[in-house]
Amino acid sequence: MSTTTRRHNAADQAVAYLRGAGERFVDDLAAFVRFPSVSAQPAHAVDIERCALWLADHLRTIGLEHVRIARTRGHPIVQADWLHAPRRDTVLIYGHYDVQPAEPLGKWVSSPFEPAVRGNELYGRGASDDKGQLFVHVKAIESYLRSGGSLPVNVKCLFEGEEEIGSPNLAEFVAAHRHELVAQCAVLSDTPILAPDRPAITYGLRGGLSMELEIATLEHDLHSGNFGGAVHNAIQVLSDVLASLHDKNGRIAIADFYDRVLAVSSAERTYLQRNGPSDWELLRSAGGVRAAGEPGYTAYERTAIRPALSITGIQGGYSGPGVKAVIPARASAKLNFRLVPQQEPDEIERLFRTHVGRVISPSVRFRIRTGLSARPVLLRWDHSVMRAAASAYQSSFDQLPVLIRSGGTIPVAALLQDVLRIPTVLMGFALPDDRMHAPNERFRLPMFFRGIKTSIQFLAEMSKRSSAAPGRERVLH
Amino acid sequence: MSTTTRRHNAADQAVAYLRGAGERFVDDLAAFVRFPSVSAQPAHAVDIERCALWLADHLRTIGLEHVRIARTRGHPIVQADWLHAPRRDTVLIYGHYDVQPAEPLGKWVSSPFEPAVRGNELYGRGASDDKGQLFVHVKAIESYLRSGGSLPVNVKCLFEGEEEIGSPNLAEFVAAHRHELVAQCAVLSDTPILAPDRPAITYGLRGGLSMELEIATLEHDLHSGNFGGAVHNAIQVLSDVLASLHDKNGRIAIADFYDRVLAVSSAERTYLQRNGPSDWELLRSAGGVRAAGEPGYTAYERTAIRPALSITGIQGGYSGPGVKAVIPARASAKLNFRLVPQQEPDEIERLFRTHVGRVISPSVRFRIRTGLSARPVLLRWDHSVMRAAASAYQSSFDQLPVLIRSGGTIPVAALLQDVLRIPTVLMGFALPDDRMHAPNERFRLPMFFRGIKTSIQFLAEMSKRSSAAPGRERVLH
Repeated sequence: MSTTTRRHNAADQAVAYLRGAGERFVDDLAAFVRFPSVSAQPAHAVDIERCALWLADHLRTIGLEHVRIARTRGHPIVQADWLHAPRRDTVLIYGHYDVQPAEPLGKWVSSPFEPAVRGNELYGRGASDDKGQLFVHVKAIESYLRSGGSLPVNVKCLFEGEEEIGSPNLAEFVAAHRHELVAQCAVLSDTPILAPDRPAITYGLRGGLSMELEIATLEHDLHSGNFGGAVHNAIQVLSDVLASLHDKNGRIAIADFYDRVLAVSSAERTYLQRNGPSDWELLRSAGGVRAAGEPGYTAYERTAIRPALSITGIQGGYSGPGVKAVIPARASAKLNFRLVPQQEPDEIERLFRTHVGRVISPSVRFRIRTGLSARPVLLRWDHSVMRAAASAYQSSFDQLPVLIRSGGTIPVAALLQDVLRIPTVLMGFALPDDRMHAPNERFRLPMFFRGIKTSIQFLAEMSKRSSAAPGRERVLH
Repeated sequence: MSTTTRRHNAADQAVAYLRGAGERFVDDLAAFVRFPSVSAQPAHAVDIERCALWLADHLRTIGLEHVRIARTRGHPIVQADWLHAPRRDTVLIYGHYDVQPAEPLGKWVSSPFEPAVRGNELYGRGASDDKGQLFVHVKAIESYLRSGGSLPVNVKCLFEGEEEIGSPNLAEFVAAHRHELVAQCAVLSDTPILAPDRPAITYGLRGGLSMELEIATLEHDLHSGNFGGAVHNAIQVLSDVLASLHDKNGRIAIADFYDRVLAVSSAERTYLQRNGPSDWELLRSAGGVRAAGEPGYTAYERTAIRPALSITGIQGGYSGPGVKAVIPARASAKLNFRLVPQQEPDEIERLFRTHVGRVISPSVRFRIRTGLSARPVLLRWDHSVMRAAASAYQSSFDQLPVLIRSGGTIPVAALLQDVLRIPTVLMGFALPDDRMHAPNERFRLPMFFRGIKTSIQFLAEMSKRSSAAPGRERVLH
């Protein structure tokens, strides 16, 4: 029997195991969802801990090795691996076992932490984001190990408990453990596909850069009657700065801002136009609004291949009911840049600071704070990991996946790319109406099973890649 | 005995009475201050009521007639009069018996509603604003009526209980009772003088116009990753509008905004420069900031003879800790115009609406709400009421008063001017450090006594004016 046949047999055996064990897999997922592992709420710290312990125990049960709970300054990281495939690639599987708060509780049909199957759907907080999608890979591994006793590639699991609060401790952890986390690629399942029969791989993500700009013009608020007209008004100064950030056409007016923006080939633009949402579809999903933004691009392109700057919050002075005749001493705004390859968050931050310093009068004090920052991510279509993932979807969905460039940012993907220097393939199994972050979150059980099958195939495909021993591939275009 | 001598004797007798009764006057004022007549706090509604009853009773005791408590939709108005001076003018005395909230209570040395005399000062909420200054006139009337049995002019008292919440029911009341309130002038004591030996009359006030601008670009907030770059951002649109309201030099950039602004004579400007605060003094009182504003004018002129537009509050999106990646659907700002003669609030509102409509893209919805609005007030220096007031200060302070143009707005003065068509003379007795609206508010007893003497002299002077029977005088320049 050739290597290829053996490998295929292993995948087939795993799929057969999945068929027999499906009902128990759902029970296991329900047990996982039952933990109210809400990372944002300190009252749930003990539930996070219990959930991590349960998950570690479960990984041990299915045959993973070196199961460990790594302490961080926040919630723990659960790790495990299986490293008995010499000369094969190592796949790093990332997921998160923490969940969003379940509030407003009154809007749930069944309690968020008492998972309930209704029809073909499992309801509960975290059912889709991300416990269900994380479990897709866990159950693929179990299917292999229980049916044939081995995996076609080496696997490392990295399951964190702080994704929903911005992964504050993950970067430090990955940097400190980068030798232990060596792998040839990472897989992350926390993105949607388009429809039950339209699988998708997200191959591009915008980077993110969050800033806060605070203006202070006065020592304290002043009476707008006594002083109006003779002193700087913090809100006025802030508005002037914010208005200066875009030109009349909707382009960002910060000097040199577009310098590093990578041109997108006409082939790629044509593909995105054919396979992505039309302007009408995208604007409908935005609530049926009119288009705005940079000229020369479709709405989808504006969100996916072009950078953007959103003011996400502003405050200053008095905003309560009625009138308060005050010249505010302070005002502040939060800004959120979305960056595309090859823009560098650090450089954009510098350009922004220079711009603000140029616009604001020297007699006005201001402070800029930088919050989250993540590089853009872009995987070449012809990267072998992409090909492995596409082929896996094809075999489980009978459809080639649509390739998506997303306007969103997944800092973990950028982190693994930057620190471990490996590509992260975003294999989603959620559906757009899974109600992630909202009441009555659910995971479609057919997606759960197809997902497990896809993961089984993906690991098999990855073992082919290792055999072919390709040269070092570029992650970015 | 000539008429003039009799009149002078009456004023002298009143002043003599004041000298003998001074201590009791302080006790009466303390009794008045004891009521926690906080108009803003519903819990104090019963205290407002008790205070109005006490004040009415007190006015009856000192010899005023037709004492009545007029009901409004809010807190009551206390009225009284004395109309036994045929062929003499009628002076309408306006004051307010409601007070600001006393919070923060912990910062008071003695309890705000247990008035305490320390040194030459009476401490308590409302001691200066406005119970003490209102009482200046009440005690002048008492001094006349108790010593000589009559007043040199007719007097009508109008004491409201809602000034500190913006006099929401006064305009309707004055309009409905305008025949009953007929008078030749009004006097209002709720303004500061410059120092104990530098009396002042405020002869000009800016008008006010408060607006709220709300922008709605979306049905609901959107994710700044998924949609950033392709839809309108409410804060961005709002910032663009706010930035468009001033030009680079600090002038208001609304078309036709300055059309009706009355030129100020060089004589008046020279007087204001000599007698008003220097740039350095005004900016020091603003906390030591750098000058800003319209070129060609001093800081004092910018606040007093030129209009201004302050943004008093702004809100939109997420302003809590950390980052929320949201494109806000809504944002709003509060604006406060200060207007000078002959600008009309209604016209300025129209110009503002036109400007906003011109700046905002037709696909963005916005709403403008108008809040408080009051015309500017300006009294000619040579108006006989001004001369009477100046002469009264001269005789009690041995100093001619400084003539002040204030950047503030006193809607009541504009209301009496507009509805009753009479000049309102602003005779202040407060000192700049009386801590109005702040903890440890106080009224200087020497100012109380000098104030009563000034009021006695003012009424005497006003009776001269009636004798001279001047023609109809213009209120405004």
